[in-house]
Amino acid sequence: MKKAIEEIRQFNLERDWDQFHTPENLAKSISIEAGELLECFQWDANYDPEHVKEEMADVYSYLLMMADELNVDLEEITLAKIEKNKIKYPVERARGNSAKYDKLD
Amino acid sequence: MKKAIEEIRQFNLERDWDQFHTPENLAKSISIEAGELLECFQWDANYDPEHVKEEMADVYSYLLMMADELNVDLEEITLAKIEKNKIKYPVERARGNSAKYDKLD
Amino acid sequence: MKKAIEEIRQFNLERDWDQFHTPENLAKSISIEAGELLECFQWDANYDPEHVKEEMADVYSYLLMMADELNVDLEEITLAKIEKNKIKYPVERARGNSAKYDKLD
Amino acid sequence: MKKAIEEIRQFNLERDWDQFHTPENLAKSISIEAGELLECFQWDANYDPEHVKEEMADVYSYLLMMADELNVDLEEITLAKIEKNKIKYPVERARGNSAKYDKLD
Repeated sequence: MKKAIEEIRQFNLERDWDQFHTPENLAKSISIEAGELLECFQWDANYDPEHVKEEMADVYSYLLMMADELNVDLEEITLAKIEKNKIKYPVERARGNSAKYDKLD
Repeated sequence: MKKAIEEIRQFNLERDWDQFHTPENLAKSISIEAGELLECFQWDANYDPEHVKEEMADVYSYLLMMADELNVDLEEITLAKIEKNKIKYPVERARGNSAKYDKLD
Repeated sequence: MKKAIEEIRQFNLERDWDQFHTPENLAKSISIEAGELLECFQWDANYDPEHVKEEMADVYSYLLMMADELNVDLEEITLAKIEKNKIKYPVERARGNSAKYDKLD
Repeated sequence: MKKAIEEIRQFNLERDWDQFHTPENLAKSISIEAGELLECFQWDANYDPEHVKEEMADVYSYLLMMADELNVDLEEITLAKIEKNKIKYPVERARGNSAKYDKLD
């Protein structure tokens, strides 16, 4: 994770692009790139692995930039979210069930 | 990155949720969570940092699951994409310019 | 609205594309096109009106196809949703306030 | 279409919400609601028709507001886009083929 964000910082610095990377614009960018990733699966479950990888990289890059901008550790916030999800989705009620937590029996 | 994906694997294993995590469904999930992240910035640039962190964690979790499912290294594909972007966005033409590569002067 | 959906039906019939237009695939398509519309506003509030119109048309086309597929009247469901929103967002509490209904004072 | 947009205008006027409805914010809103519509199909093709209708109504409402704000006729721009698509997707090459126009044989 270290090397990617360092390369991204250098890339943006050289192009003077940090001015565009407000949290709001990065949130838009993550959504836009997520749409392009979804487009790889628009009509069926078959997909071009190389294309998928590129779109995953785009989502990840903007997510890294947002984490960098907000001074957030992605690993740490994800572990914290998993702990919350353990409470929202207790094993005994969620097992084999894709329902949303407020629709679990 | 190691610890988060290991926790996620364990979480999903206990709930027997891997059956739902096809690449296509994960692509949908990334897009859905990216929309929830964007919602934090729907009407203005102000945002609730705790809410933003949770939505970032959700996008990241599904992205980690997709990388795990496709046996892809996020760091590696991102570095490869940066190399491609260096060619698409040459410093001298892209500096201070937010235009898309096919609209650069 | 009549003419657009008739033209779309004819367009799809000639290309034998109805087989791809399951509700699920149309939901993906609406999301993908909404991302392309958002891309017109990725870095600032300036936009190319012609590009915006084309992306709006794409979102609308898939929405019309989904309404057609599900035998739903867009006008009717929208009027019903407005009635629900009147209850969720009472004038006296929502005036000049962009907060979500569950965050209204 | 007339009645829905009139009801929406009145709803927003009473709440003094037009101040939030810039084209950029409406583009974000369409994307956010499209994500909620997609969530109805997150894990499989089964869906709750009432929930789907509500999310379709939300996408449509923001699209109507954007069209109203930009003084655009949705029917007209959609018919124009279909004409463009007829050229991008010639019947003989696109028949039964879900490939994007730049990937058609």
